[in-house]
Amino acid sequence: MTRTFGQHSVVREVVRYRYELLQEFASAIFTSLGLCCEDAAMAAAVLIAADLRGVDSHGVAHLHPTDHFYVGGLRTGTLNPRGHLETIHETSISLLLDGDRSLGMVAGVKAMRRTIEKARDSGVCLTALRNAGHYGMAGYYAMMALEHDMIGMSMTNTAPIMLPTFGRQPMLGTDPIAFAVPAGMERALVLDMATTTVSGGKVEVAAREGKPLPLGWATGPDGQPITDAALALQRLWLTPLGGTAEQGSYKGYGLATIVEIIAGLLSGAGASFMLKDSMRGHFFAAFRIDLFQRPNEFKVHMDEFLRGLKATPPVDGADRVLVAGQREFEIDAERRANGVPLHPEVVATLKEVADQQGIPWPL
Amino acid sequence: MTRTFGQHSVVREVVRYRYELLQEFASAIFTSLGLCCEDAAMAAAVLIAADLRGVDSHGVAHLHPTDHFYVGGLRTGTLNPRGHLETIHETSISLLLDGDRSLGMVAGVKAMRRTIEKARDSGVCLTALRNAGHYGMAGYYAMMALEHDMIGMSMTNTAPIMLPTFGRQPMLGTDPIAFAVPAGMERALVLDMATTTVSGGKVEVAAREGKPLPLGWATGPDGQPITDAALALQRLWLTPLGGTAEQGSYKGYGLATIVEIIAGLLSGAGASFMLKDSMRGHFFAAFRIDLFQRPNEFKVHMDEFLRGLKATPPVDGADRVLVAGQREFEIDAERRANGVPLHPEVVATLKEVADQQGIPWPL
Repeated sequence: MTRTFGQHSVVREVVRYRYELLQEFASAIFTSLGLCCEDAAMAAAVLIAADLRGVDSHGVAHLHPTDHFYVGGLRTGTLNPRGHLETIHETSISLLLDGDRSLGMVAGVKAMRRTIEKARDSGVCLTALRNAGHYGMAGYYAMMALEHDMIGMSMTNTAPIMLPTFGRQPMLGTDPIAFAVPAGMERALVLDMATTTVSGGKVEVAAREGKPLPLGWATGPDGQPITDAALALQRLWLTPLGGTAEQGSYKGYGLATIVEIIAGLLSGAGASFMLKDSMRGHFFAAFRIDLFQRPNEFKVHMDEFLRGLKATPPVDGADRVLVAGQREFEIDAERRANGVPLHPEVVATLKEVADQQGIPWPL
Repeated sequence: MTRTFGQHSVVREVVRYRYELLQEFASAIFTSLGLCCEDAAMAAAVLIAADLRGVDSHGVAHLHPTDHFYVGGLRTGTLNPRGHLETIHETSISLLLDGDRSLGMVAGVKAMRRTIEKARDSGVCLTALRNAGHYGMAGYYAMMALEHDMIGMSMTNTAPIMLPTFGRQPMLGTDPIAFAVPAGMERALVLDMATTTVSGGKVEVAAREGKPLPLGWATGPDGQPITDAALALQRLWLTPLGGTAEQGSYKGYGLATIVEIIAGLLSGAGASFMLKDSMRGHFFAAFRIDLFQRPNEFKVHMDEFLRGLKATPPVDGADRVLVAGQREFEIDAERRANGVPLHPEVVATLKEVADQQGIPWPL
């Protein structure tokens, strides 16, 4: 059942909001918390991109008043609203940056812009960033490379919520990895995955919707799987991708250690279990496709590859075979047209923050 | 029950062989198939390194007389015993190479050597290699970077045996990813993982030992899991890491597409489902740690990180928490001391090849 109310439509209880309005709103919140106008817009754009792509766990839902990620962190002074990116060490193909306790989105977008600029000149650039907060959806930064005929990459570490295989204490973050690869007529391939079986955000969404977790996503203190989403959210103990040792969880765990090393140790932020003050380590990379192939020819091959995968006959009960990022591009198109659906709890949270910051609720 | 026979000891029916003798033997086989002495030794070293590290699926067991990987390929002329690595395109930070249908191990070691040399000068090097055969254990190439205070990486695509999530036709290789990161007092972290739930080699080992497969490793033509290892080996249809969509198999599938793009499309070899003549695409990378941190300080942090992970309290029923590559280093030390155990079927195969090539069986 869908009803339309002026600027937005209603699907069941979930109201849809025009993404432009959400973006202005998020930007106003950040400005009210001390960010300069350009930085506030930059941070808002990263959040809205997640909401548009259906990554609801990484969008405006994170503008929670007490959440240390953004609003809470800016209020308590953990995050610096006027941080300046400092270059600690630079070569023609690398950057080591200090985020000066900026919002991760602001430091992240600036870091990836510089990464792309340097890759344009040198072919490749590897950038490690420390002392910046949670940066939202990892895929955003990787995707920034697409229009430059580059392959983009990003990784970040987070608070420790992943259990090592056979361990009963969380030691690693969800430690996402993102890659973006341009195609020709097809949409780009965008992989953006936590190295846990599922991201913390999916547990958050299940808890909000009162749904049980599938076995194998999260465990209790005895190392046994739990399905109570609310309980799992209270004390996030997530399994590495693979779920169990027999099903290859040492691979998800191994990938997470690589993220911890590249984003955490190379940047100087530290591994998840050593992080302080909610600051994280981030990593960005871009390289030019023409180091190897003419971009136009490469894109023709990408199209063939993606079309080949999509044409795989599906198993019974499945409609089709997808490629990484495809569903998100489809959701993006739909939400740009019809608005971004927000859960009533998220709307209540945003109204609360708006009230507290003296921002009119324009939605 | 262990008995000792001169140079080797026997554990049940599995005889152990000194790795130096195995290496000489493998080298003699390659020489008899037309490789020059240095190339033969290079290829043999990669195989023996796998046997030493317990990666039995990627060692001398692959010297099967009809296997197109090495012996069969060299006999039929698919592989060129005297191939020369040709540089198609080169920049200060990249190489595009053509392997001239060489053995993957020979082209791979030479490609990674050049990658490391260039990274020494430029900080980083990315190398794509096409027109070379199966290159054995991916981790070998990544580990070559360790002694140079670099982080090493390698990827390769293979014949299509991985099903995309929701697909019922294999479209991707096992598409392994390997990373090697030096540490200080601790052993290096070495991640070497197929992006399938398990590698084809593990199915091979289970079939050889007559053991059933755990549910979720392989599927039949209807998309349902199968446990018969011999049947699974006949027509390898492996699940992506994660196993099922609910448990995140779209992540293993997504990682495999990145490997296909970086190793297959950038090199010009093509994606798994487009590969011809058993030739594959390979990718190698290395970058200097001092782009970001002083190597000695980084290694101290690596030691802290690895020790922290190993000190994680284990769940009931588990002895300890491991880090990637740790078990393989332990096996390596044990096998260097006590010999490499070979399954009788593998020994019979090696004797057959030795007879056919007129090589004395020295073991």
